[in-house]
Amino acid sequence: MNANGTPQKTLALFDSTLRDGAQAEGISFSVPDKLKIVEALDGLGVRYIEAGNPGSNPKDLDFFQQVAHIQLKHAKLTGFGSTRRRDINVEDDKNVASLLQANTPAVAIFGKSWDFHVTEILRTTLDENLAMIRDTLAFFKTKGKEVIFDAEHYFDGYKNNPEYALQTLEAAVEGGDTVLCLCDTNGGAFPDEIAAATKLVVETIAKKHGVEVGIHCHNDGGMAVANTIVAVEAGAVHVQGTLNGLGERCGNANLCTIIPNLQAKRGYQCILPEKMADLAPTAAYAAEIANIKLNDRDPYVGKSAFAHKGGMHIDGVNKASSSFEHVDPALVGNERRFLMSEVSGRATILSKIQRVMPSVTKDSPETESIIGRLKELEHMGYQFEGAESSFKLLVHKHLGKYKPFFELIHFKIIGEQPRKNGTSSTAMIKLAVDGKEEITAADGDGPVHALDRALRKALEVFYPELKQVHLTDYKVRVLETRSATASKVRVLIESTDGEEAWTTVGVSNDIIEASWIALVDSMEHKLLKELEKKMRVFM
Amino acid sequence: MNANGTPQKTLALFDSTLRDGAQAEGISFSVPDKLKIVEALDGLGVRYIEAGNPGSNPKDLDFFQQVAHIQLKHAKLTGFGSTRRRDINVEDDKNVASLLQANTPAVAIFGKSWDFHVTEILRTTLDENLAMIRDTLAFFKTKGKEVIFDAEHYFDGYKNNPEYALQTLEAAVEGGDTVLCLCDTNGGAFPDEIAAATKLVVETIAKKHGVEVGIHCHNDGGMAVANTIVAVEAGAVHVQGTLNGLGERCGNANLCTIIPNLQAKRGYQCILPEKMADLAPTAAYAAEIANIKLNDRDPYVGKSAFAHKGGMHIDGVNKASSSFEHVDPALVGNERRFLMSEVSGRATILSKIQRVMPSVTKDSPETESIIGRLKELEHMGYQFEGAESSFKLLVHKHLGKYKPFFELIHFKIIGEQPRKNGTSSTAMIKLAVDGKEEITAADGDGPVHALDRALRKALEVFYPELKQVHLTDYKVRVLETRSATASKVRVLIESTDGEEAWTTVGVSNDIIEASWIALVDSMEHKLLKELEKKMRVFM
Repeated sequence: MNANGTPQKTLALFDSTLRDGAQAEGISFSVPDKLKIVEALDGLGVRYIEAGNPGSNPKDLDFFQQVAHIQLKHAKLTGFGSTRRRDINVEDDKNVASLLQANTPAVAIFGKSWDFHVTEILRTTLDENLAMIRDTLAFFKTKGKEVIFDAEHYFDGYKNNPEYALQTLEAAVEGGDTVLCLCDTNGGAFPDEIAAATKLVVETIAKKHGVEVGIHCHNDGGMAVANTIVAVEAGAVHVQGTLNGLGERCGNANLCTIIPNLQAKRGYQCILPEKMADLAPTAAYAAEIANIKLNDRDPYVGKSAFAHKGGMHIDGVNKASSSFEHVDPALVGNERRFLMSEVSGRATILSKIQRVMPSVTKDSPETESIIGRLKELEHMGYQFEGAESSFKLLVHKHLGKYKPFFELIHFKIIGEQPRKNGTSSTAMIKLAVDGKEEITAADGDGPVHALDRALRKALEVFYPELKQVHLTDYKVRVLETRSATASKVRVLIESTDGEEAWTTVGVSNDIIEASWIALVDSMEHKLLKELEKKMRVFM
Repeated sequence: MNANGTPQKTLALFDSTLRDGAQAEGISFSVPDKLKIVEALDGLGVRYIEAGNPGSNPKDLDFFQQVAHIQLKHAKLTGFGSTRRRDINVEDDKNVASLLQANTPAVAIFGKSWDFHVTEILRTTLDENLAMIRDTLAFFKTKGKEVIFDAEHYFDGYKNNPEYALQTLEAAVEGGDTVLCLCDTNGGAFPDEIAAATKLVVETIAKKHGVEVGIHCHNDGGMAVANTIVAVEAGAVHVQGTLNGLGERCGNANLCTIIPNLQAKRGYQCILPEKMADLAPTAAYAAEIANIKLNDRDPYVGKSAFAHKGGMHIDGVNKASSSFEHVDPALVGNERRFLMSEVSGRATILSKIQRVMPSVTKDSPETESIIGRLKELEHMGYQFEGAESSFKLLVHKHLGKYKPFFELIHFKIIGEQPRKNGTSSTAMIKLAVDGKEEITAADGDGPVHALDRALRKALEVFYPELKQVHLTDYKVRVLETRSATASKVRVLIESTDGEEAWTTVGVSNDIIEASWIALVDSMEHKLLKELEKKMRVFM
């Protein structure tokens, strides 16, 4: 039973981050990016992952070949494509052929439900459009696919010519089971329009044919989330949206808001209940992969979603958190923050320190100094959420248990144009380990690459175990843009030694310095790990 | 009559950007900031401007003294404050006194409508809370103020104890006219709850006393806009919100979305009809003053709100703009943009080329070579969707109309640690213009900053007009992470000369080289523009 006393319903969640989300301005996913997002979505227990449009984008076929090697636990991969073009046989349509070739268990086929689009954009007859829908969906059904019909512009179409809009749905269900997904493609519909039109389809065509109704909203009127919810309450059971609301123009309905709204407050099941606390980390991860800044004010998952600033609000939350929080932030894996108060997040920080060093308590003398240093670093632009290794090193440094593994004497990097012999940068480095000095040089593609190679080359003389370490990811985020090329940057480096992967962070106005800090942390993480192994052997 | 055939209603728009908006994370308005926003809001024709809380923020009293010198045409300044504290006379409450001292024609008084807040947060009796509301509102009415009662947590209160929530409204209307503004303070309410509770107040208490009902929503459930709209359709005539949805936690209802939704689509009057096209510029202006980046995906006013990327969308909009736009962007002072990417079609690219060079047709010999080069560059990782200026230069280069403004002989950058005299990088550059050579050097925070400064210094010798150019944004995107520090990066640079802003792009494995390409394009954009100006003078 849900909160309203009606029987609990499981909704089929359909994520389109990799298709409609990729149509957002500034978004361009590589194949490895897409594979990572597929795995994250599958982990949450999303039912369908719409991952590309092989007909319009040849790069997507490469992705579908690679993704076939991933064993998904919960989700069905879904290819997206159009109904066949007008006046040809469906077998002769090359986009249809590409979609079939993508070899996904489910396909989402969009077709026109708005008569105006049929005559003015497709420039064909209303009857031919019905045939295009009928033929294309029937074709994929005979191929054994699970079929979703994206009734494009359904609500605009229904407003303009209700009879014809309904006929397009009838054409879609011919020849077998079809999810009838009603799309507010232009994103300008109002909740009352969505509720009435959805209810009618649920109670007529869908009921008659025993098929499910879906909803796909865009946010051009700022109401995509509410429109999705009223559609669900009107009987839609298939819900489309994207992580962080990425999508064409103003974006799609934001699943990171819809999921907790429906699951935590209205008793629907959208994702695995035990994965609800993964929502905020997943939103942050998807933003990181898309290389966008997650909107601080995003409901549930944003950095400010549970940030209290007004004095009376902070006072209220301290007395009873529900006084100014609609849900417990822990429910979605987010945290409460007090912006004006010295006690901000203290308990949270302590619990993080204890993860590295369980013996530390809130009264330990180190606690104060670690928290102080952490605040200082965060103020500078550090963020340790994705960089546990740098945080661990920070704690070690404050517990007096840390001895640097090497001392930098100096480095110098030269970058030049035109390139000489193909390389653009050279780095020289001089460092010392236990009083023994080593000076060396390396070249590379760009200053950081040259520095990375020179540092390893020098350190490997003393620590051969660093030969196992490879950098696997390098990210740069410009933190404040006002000072342009002198802006502060945050560099994240991901490394692996084949056994585990770790991430480190550096911040500076100078990208070389920020990279250097993160590189050194990465090497020291590995060296500390090896040292801890040896100490365990001797204990 | 509005679109639904009911008589047109004028709504009383109540802006709280300067009060609730100021409670957003990272927002801090100075007195001059506040004065500018007051003038912008008055210009739109907003009815009430809630501009501060003199009781909780002494800085606000200074503002109220200064704002008194501004002659407002449309808006009434409104001070915000709490009901009197428990167990004292209203005349003895210093916050009440401060609010009176602010000397605004209207006051918004918030009081508790949720019994839980009365007993657990205020820690007083339900009766005393009613007396606090009654006394405080009556006090301001006797002082001749227009009074708005912000019924804090009305919807949570109504859910928990409907009888008591209604009693708080009854207490507010005693002693004269009061707007009963129902607040979803925690922002978690659903549209059906808002609609039902609002309708009940409209049809009972408000009708009985002949007073108006208002709505104040927060966005914690991502539904503040929709909740506001359903409340209006349930009879609320006073609408509270903020510019760009600024506010505590996830923010308040965004007036930049609500205004066009209600005024353009449902026939309500919110602001002066002739000012609707000022909406997008006002949103941008408010963001500028608040020192935040306006969210690109914000409905109606965001940079991406009418940006089309999918090939079929672009094709559709070219045939009929309403095919993929819910309203005409000009209505709110925004503009349509076609983005270029792998998902956009040939026709878009052609229309872009034609904007730069109207004489080019799809059969021109240059078209093929430009499209070919564009695809090659996109494959390398270039993205021109936000970098119109680099695209324009690309077209020029292919039309044989381009002559480089300077020739690079060489540059050399040195980055080093430890820093020397605080700077970490030095750049030397040698270049030639029409056979005349110039060599110079500069230092900076990081290699790109040093290079940027050296390049300008050398070029300004020949082109003094470059002195007007400033870089305003610098973005770095790592494109493929597999090769870590040798990864390909894309750099976007935004520049301005005070007249216009432009963006350029560079891609390379070397961040210095990628920055160099974008820097050179930025300088050449300005130089080309000046050249075109001169040519127009001579023609």
